[in-house]
Amino acid sequence: MVGRAAYIAVDWGTTNRRAYAVASDGTVLETLRDERGVLSLAPDAYPAEISALRARFGVDPVIAVGMVGSSRGWCEAPYVDAPATLERLAASCREAAPHVRIVPGVALRDGRRPDVMRGEEIQILGAIHAGTAPATALFCQPGTHNKWVETVDGAITTFTTVMTGELFALLRAHGILAGMLDGVVSDGAPFRRGLRRGIASGNLAATLFEVRAGLLLDRLEPSEAAAYASGVLIGADVATREDLSRRPVYLLGGGDLNVLYAAAVSELGGTPITVPDGATTAGIHAIWSLSA
Amino acid sequence: MVGRAAYIAVDWGTTNRRAYAVASDGTVLETLRDERGVLSLAPDAYPAEISALRARFGVDPVIAVGMVGSSRGWCEAPYVDAPATLERLAASCREAAPHVRIVPGVALRDGRRPDVMRGEEIQILGAIHAGTAPATALFCQPGTHNKWVETVDGAITTFTTVMTGELFALLRAHGILAGMLDGVVSDGAPFRRGLRRGIASGNLAATLFEVRAGLLLDRLEPSEAAAYASGVLIGADVATREDLSRRPVYLLGGGDLNVLYAAAVSELGGTPITVPDGATTAGIHAIWSLSA
Repeated sequence: MVGRAAYIAVDWGTTNRRAYAVASDGTVLETLRDERGVLSLAPDAYPAEISALRARFGVDPVIAVGMVGSSRGWCEAPYVDAPATLERLAASCREAAPHVRIVPGVALRDGRRPDVMRGEEIQILGAIHAGTAPATALFCQPGTHNKWVETVDGAITTFTTVMTGELFALLRAHGILAGMLDGVVSDGAPFRRGLRRGIASGNLAATLFEVRAGLLLDRLEPSEAAAYASGVLIGADVATREDLSRRPVYLLGGGDLNVLYAAAVSELGGTPITVPDGATTAGIHAIWSLSA
Repeated sequence: MVGRAAYIAVDWGTTNRRAYAVASDGTVLETLRDERGVLSLAPDAYPAEISALRARFGVDPVIAVGMVGSSRGWCEAPYVDAPATLERLAASCREAAPHVRIVPGVALRDGRRPDVMRGEEIQILGAIHAGTAPATALFCQPGTHNKWVETVDGAITTFTTVMTGELFALLRAHGILAGMLDGVVSDGAPFRRGLRRGIASGNLAATLFEVRAGLLLDRLEPSEAAAYASGVLIGADVATREDLSRRPVYLLGGGDLNVLYAAAVSELGGTPITVPDGATTAGIHAIWSLSA
């Protein structure tokens, strides 16, 4: 280990887990990535997991974010209602065990429609805290459930979860398009054609069937179908934003998906800006500092 | 058997099969319904299936419609391009074996978007032929893949396939909503609330996530979630039609689903009209008569 760790930060998601040994100045000293996500763990498995992390990193305090605080996780940390700041999240942590705090997610509870997030909030507010994104901005976090998040003066004010990635995964694995969507998905001509079709469609459940019809009628090559379908889904997702010409989109944490969402934002005349890595640990460190 | 059969009509779909012994005047003398659909049969199983139907019904000629004529079925009957009439379908049947004709499906090949149907065309044109629907009309055929079909003077001119039923089935069986959508789906208050939300949504992949968020935030009862989600999907589907105030919607063949689609059409200010059963055999009999 390079320096002296002050605490362990854990980004504990549904499928994946990332744990970090963090110094008191926020420097990440060591990182562990594995697949010990919430779905792979029984509720009584967490104390042993925490002990193992402490033994590995040589330090006791733990701050965890993400699905670990959900009803399917270890210990439910009730949602904070929007508008949500780092200060409110820090004040609402749940102590799951001695020296183990779980940061709550954020809920839209009383508006026109309900929505929830767990883990994304800390990445957004961490980016703002680290100065890699402005305090008032529009964010996009591509993934299984893409999040569009709006912040005002460092508070998450509203957000929308879109099941874009999940729909692609379901269609690829099951149903009429199964076996047709196993090709490479990258930002090339088939993806761009799908994007334009998805942007113009207005009826996602109909446009998706065009993938099958296009293959049957030789208007789509089998090798292009996956990229085209991904374009349709991402195009339909991004096209629902009506504010892309007014402000840039700050893209966070989606890896390869960020490239595809950036292409979609550009296709619609918007400006995508990729936020550098490190936002989640910056957010957790802010929680640590606020609670110290 | 009540009378003397002239031929066997088979509605041979992906999952189900219906076979009818039909008299020369079109009277259905006997009906067989089973699950020997295309997915359950190997390509070389069809001759034995035909022999069994002939033995059962005591007559040789067979006219089959539906997925049996697809690349996944027995013998591919190439699509007829829209506009498609009964006459063109009759002239384009494929002889799969002696005295076994397969009626082709219909394709939108050269327009803005591709689409295909197999089996639905015979039901639509059969209803028109039988006089249970007008020759120029808008049809809706709820199912795994809902079809919206427009006819002009007895010809199918354009249509749209919407994967509404498939999306519901995928979400119910897999992914984040699995286990939440097992309740009863019927036309009650939760379904109507879902309908209104789906009609207003404009972003299906986001509105579907509200089912999960609504359950987590106690805005939706677990017992209501399936009906609500069905309402969202059907509402979003029907809301894409912009012509509902101008003409009635003729609903065909969806069983319980017809009730839900009729509710959605009414909710949007349209007029649903349920077409009586018998359209498919009426259509096949028209093919028989035209080819005799």
